Amino acid sequence: MNILGQNLVFTSFGESHGTAVGGVLEGVPAGVRIDVDLIREALNRRAGRAYPQSLPKGRGVSPRAQREKDEVEWLSGVMDGMTLGTPIAFIIRNKDARPEDYEWLKHSYRIGHADRTYQEKYGIRDHRGGGRASARETASRVVAGSVAQQLLKEKNIYIRAELVQVGCETNPAHFEEYISNIRQEGDSIGGIVECVITGLPVGVGEPIFDKLQSHLAYAMMSINGCKGFEYGSGFEGVNLKGSEMYLSDNHTLISGGIAGGISDGTPVVFRCVFKPTASNRKTFEAIRQEGDEAKGTSIGRHDACIAVRAVAVVEAMAALVLQDIFSV
Amino acid sequence: MNILGQNLVFTSFGESHGTAVGGVLEGVPAGVRIDVDLIREALNRRAGRAYPQSLPKGRGVSPRAQREKDEVEWLSGVMDGMTLGTPIAFIIRNKDARPEDYEWLKHSYRIGHADRTYQEKYGIRDHRGGGRASARETASRVVAGSVAQQLLKEKNIYIRAELVQVGCETNPAHFEEYISNIRQEGDSIGGIVECVITGLPVGVGEPIFDKLQSHLAYAMMSINGCKGFEYGSGFEGVNLKGSEMYLSDNHTLISGGIAGGISDGTPVVFRCVFKPTASNRKTFEAIRQEGDEAKGTSIGRHDACIAVRAVAVVEAMAALVLQDIFSV
Amino acid sequence: MNILGQNLVFTSFGESHGTAVGGVLEGVPAGVRIDVDLIREALNRRAGRAYPQSLPKGRGVSPRAQREKDEVEWLSGVMDGMTLGTPIAFIIRNKDARPEDYEWLKHSYRIGHADRTYQEKYGIRDHRGGGRASARETASRVVAGSVAQQLLKEKNIYIRAELVQVGCETNPAHFEEYISNIRQEGDSIGGIVECVITGLPVGVGEPIFDKLQSHLAYAMMSINGCKGFEYGSGFEGVNLKGSEMYLSDNHTLISGGIAGGISDGTPVVFRCVFKPTASNRKTFEAIRQEGDEAKGTSIGRHDACIAVRAVAVVEAMAALVLQDIFSV
Amino acid sequence: MNILGQNLVFTSFGESHGTAVGGVLEGVPAGVRIDVDLIREALNRRAGRAYPQSLPKGRGVSPRAQREKDEVEWLSGVMDGMTLGTPIAFIIRNKDARPEDYEWLKHSYRIGHADRTYQEKYGIRDHRGGGRASARETASRVVAGSVAQQLLKEKNIYIRAELVQVGCETNPAHFEEYISNIRQEGDSIGGIVECVITGLPVGVGEPIFDKLQSHLAYAMMSINGCKGFEYGSGFEGVNLKGSEMYLSDNHTLISGGIAGGISDGTPVVFRCVFKPTASNRKTFEAIRQEGDEAKGTSIGRHDACIAVRAVAVVEAMAALVLQDIFSV
Repeated sequence: MNILGQNLVFTSFGESHGTAVGGVLEGVPAGVRIDVDLIREALNRRAGRAYPQSLPKGRGVSPRAQREKDEVEWLSGVMDGMTLGTPIAFIIRNKDARPEDYEWLKHSYRIGHADRTYQEKYGIRDHRGGGRASARETASRVVAGSVAQQLLKEKNIYIRAELVQVGCETNPAHFEEYISNIRQEGDSIGGIVECVITGLPVGVGEPIFDKLQSHLAYAMMSINGCKGFEYGSGFEGVNLKGSEMYLSDNHTLISGGIAGGISDGTPVVFRCVFKPTASNRKTFEAIRQEGDEAKGTSIGRHDACIAVRAVAVVEAMAALVLQDIFSV
Repeated sequence: MNILGQNLVFTSFGESHGTAVGGVLEGVPAGVRIDVDLIREALNRRAGRAYPQSLPKGRGVSPRAQREKDEVEWLSGVMDGMTLGTPIAFIIRNKDARPEDYEWLKHSYRIGHADRTYQEKYGIRDHRGGGRASARETASRVVAGSVAQQLLKEKNIYIRAELVQVGCETNPAHFEEYISNIRQEGDSIGGIVECVITGLPVGVGEPIFDKLQSHLAYAMMSINGCKGFEYGSGFEGVNLKGSEMYLSDNHTLISGGIAGGISDGTPVVFRCVFKPTASNRKTFEAIRQEGDEAKGTSIGRHDACIAVRAVAVVEAMAALVLQDIFSV
Repeated sequence: MNILGQNLVFTSFGESHGTAVGGVLEGVPAGVRIDVDLIREALNRRAGRAYPQSLPKGRGVSPRAQREKDEVEWLSGVMDGMTLGTPIAFIIRNKDARPEDYEWLKHSYRIGHADRTYQEKYGIRDHRGGGRASARETASRVVAGSVAQQLLKEKNIYIRAELVQVGCETNPAHFEEYISNIRQEGDSIGGIVECVITGLPVGVGEPIFDKLQSHLAYAMMSINGCKGFEYGSGFEGVNLKGSEMYLSDNHTLISGGIAGGISDGTPVVFRCVFKPTASNRKTFEAIRQEGDEAKGTSIGRHDACIAVRAVAVVEAMAALVLQDIFSV
Repeated sequence: MNILGQNLVFTSFGESHGTAVGGVLEGVPAGVRIDVDLIREALNRRAGRAYPQSLPKGRGVSPRAQREKDEVEWLSGVMDGMTLGTPIAFIIRNKDARPEDYEWLKHSYRIGHADRTYQEKYGIRDHRGGGRASARETASRVVAGSVAQQLLKEKNIYIRAELVQVGCETNPAHFEEYISNIRQEGDSIGGIVECVITGLPVGVGEPIFDKLQSHLAYAMMSINGCKGFEYGSGFEGVNLKGSEMYLSDNHTLISGGIAGGISDGTPVVFRCVFKPTASNRKTFEAIRQEGDEAKGTSIGRHDACIAVRAVAVVEAMAALVLQDIFSV
């Protein structure tokens, strides 16, 4: 399914190299002014044209992403910049569609991509640039998530994600150089994004199956390349004894702002890990030497560290989840 | 919400110290023979009376859990041991209910428990033993999950979870001693459970928002004490370069059996981390010394490592998810 | 599915001649006192032991229904008579279960019943008294609906259904005699139930697919024997010209209290038609004369006019729908 | 909500006088060739440019409807005319948008329209031509429903609706003249549409709350102007005795092809009644004489009998429902 949420329902559609990607956002209250500048800024961050932190523009990001200015066309639900309470449909046209670049993919499955599972599941696929599996689909999420973030801001809830680890490097000041080196090697690298939600009152989330962390995990695991989700003490916490954990001064870092599935009034803190992309020169060349070029992926146009651009998507998904379960 | 799934729908109900815990399982096909021995075995594992691996009976497990034999009463949906295709309702009566033990909890919030968030969310709560937030609720999940496992076995899909780490210890042979020491210290410790699903054909899971890993993460994060979920390369993978990852011989460990949200035909491998329980003597005594006894939790009746018993719950939740999204 | 609603979620379970029928009600706010007398009264009306209007006790109603006092056992979600905000599970035990009466049904399909469609759909069925298809299942609905009615009353919303037509008779004063005659003939007859909802503010219901009338129709058509739903001018309105309709003084009767799917602040008025039951002596004897006794149904224990008892079920279903879509 | 279905999920969006109306159809299998001619034909029927029966083109239909050729633009989910298994998004641009015609509606509520309930619910509305409440929205339903009908045809399931009553007239041969007279009077009239589904196997539909008739009723009641739904013996059946009904030769007409909520293998037959539109000259003039012009509706551009065009929408909604619950 390409549908997320119960109260704020987001439907995503569009192939990477078709006419457009887009979405429909149902459940946005009437009478809200949409700030298109905030949406553009979020899209720029996703496209690698702006960063939440110190990285200079465009580092670690593919040329296509930088070239292609994403422009949102609003089809419904907005009149004179105000929401009507009806479904908000929007599209972003695919400008840089060069289907001929992907002709060879018709009969090949790239390593580390979803080409084969899609083909076996559906018996057909849009092979051009990954079609629906392309990370381009996340542009729709960022538009919808940005609208959700605006709704949350009115309730003084703020969501802020940032890159906190690249490979083994945890000092943000060194990220730029680290990624630059990886790119020069023709390789790619993983990263960890941390997200902090502030302003959430006590009581958001439900016990048992609609726990706040369940919804967040569900949404984060839907982001391309995400291999893990943790909150509070997370996986590191396995080494902590109970007496260390509960007597700690650093309550929030350990609880993650959630108790029994319900927000406890302190900031909610969670992290997602993103794998390195398979689209790197080194992998491609190794495969080529084995004489199986088809399995490789085109080189030179992809991100050295997809976690960089994932930051904007993590924020968007968190916003969609929160506005969905806290829309009243 | 206390409801999980779309096709196999599981509703969980019951307070820890009320009449009973129980559940309703909707969407089980007609004409399936229910193996009650398998259900009893799963309940025993959850109760700490049996282990998936080498741990001797009852180690790391509270006395109540061991004493209380959980017996399942079937209320509907089953006739002469066969399913009817109608909702299967069942209950497990609460035998060891001693509400007076919990009188002091009426006006106190235990540290590391959901007492306060429940109270603030609902303005009322069943304070006896955590009420609905008690881990006893997971007994219902294990019954339902065991039925789901039986349905999956008919399709040759097998789910097997085991404890792979306790504190910093990763050698299963040492788990028993490790936990025993923690218990003697009056402390508690975290653990990691790994789950492997074999027999899943290519094509299970949906792209975008119904990714297989999203549903698994959602379900695992709903288990009491679970602080993180990862599959394949997980959080460790942040240190891997793309060239290392995709040219590795150990494909499954890295992919986790899922590509683009869809099972790829190799075993699905995921891990969950469980925090140490707050119900330990050391924490309690430290709190008592601060003169704030009310925040403490009763001692001596709780698990030194809740991950031990979580193994059965992880299997149950994985089975519920898989049968739900692969019920056709 | 045996599940109704999104916010107030009602799960119904239980076979007519199994252990019990029952239900789980999720989404009831915490801190509400349950009035068990109101529930008992609603169950009595459904069982034909009390009437919303002038009919004397038990007329048109089967002996089993009158004999069997339905007692509700609460399994969870209620403590000291107050709701906890957790799932409310309840059962009504089947006391009058005489499975041997139904032995002949194992291999027969009664005319006008769901025996054959159940068998063909599931390949198995509880043949005893219709199993899940028995009208006994509606007892669970009446319990749940009565709780919902109590929640609505706190918002000053009142639901009142009554029988307005029996066969061609529309004068309530004559219903008793009319039904009595039908019973003496060994026959059965249809009826129309009208329901009026007062106190609903403007704005309940959603445009397009979640129209108020859509939810009401869905719920009413789920009641056994219901063959039609209409609101406001309904089917009779086909003969009205636009100028007659919109210039009428009797606005509410024509609009039915809904415009564009949304309540308009005037009383909501709808009607449901119920067919005569197939369980009547005349049909049975005619079938017997054809030498095909098996198709007949047991006689003498069934209602001459099921619409009489449907009144309580119509109210219950309307309450469940309204509390579901107006639970905030 | 503007979303229908669980397996085949249809999202409708768009204001009558905004950029476009459109929809997203999720759950269409991959590899199906879309027949755009069938879609065009269905749209023509909805627009009053073609009829399922003998009525000459355009009778009883507003000039705008006839002028405006609806052209479908496919945004996603289709490649080279074949479905990809991904969401199918489409739009129909609003060509005849003349917002200035509706300026006066900004501050007025038309009688018999949803203007006031929308305004009170949302505090804002697109006043131009009814905005989201306009019958133009049904064009999206017809496109989606036509795709669903194509999927059903592959399973040999056919849906055919037709007008069976206009006012008190039940002879189709007289409908044209009847409606023509109503139009000349400056008035409007109601009608009844009957729909027959053939080819449905035994077993479609679920007991209790997902009865086939519940889903059909839900969908039909969502169509603008529909005031009632019945199947089989329907409201007329109130006059039938049980012995007459069950011993009748005309089984299908009475059962409506459904038993216990589940299709019984015979044709499914249901009927919907549509009220006369409030947009007629007579009503307008009467209101004008009362000096309250604002309440009136523009004249001369509306249908004398909306049931004529509803035929295509009834088929579309039936197809969406059936493909949704019988998509496996």
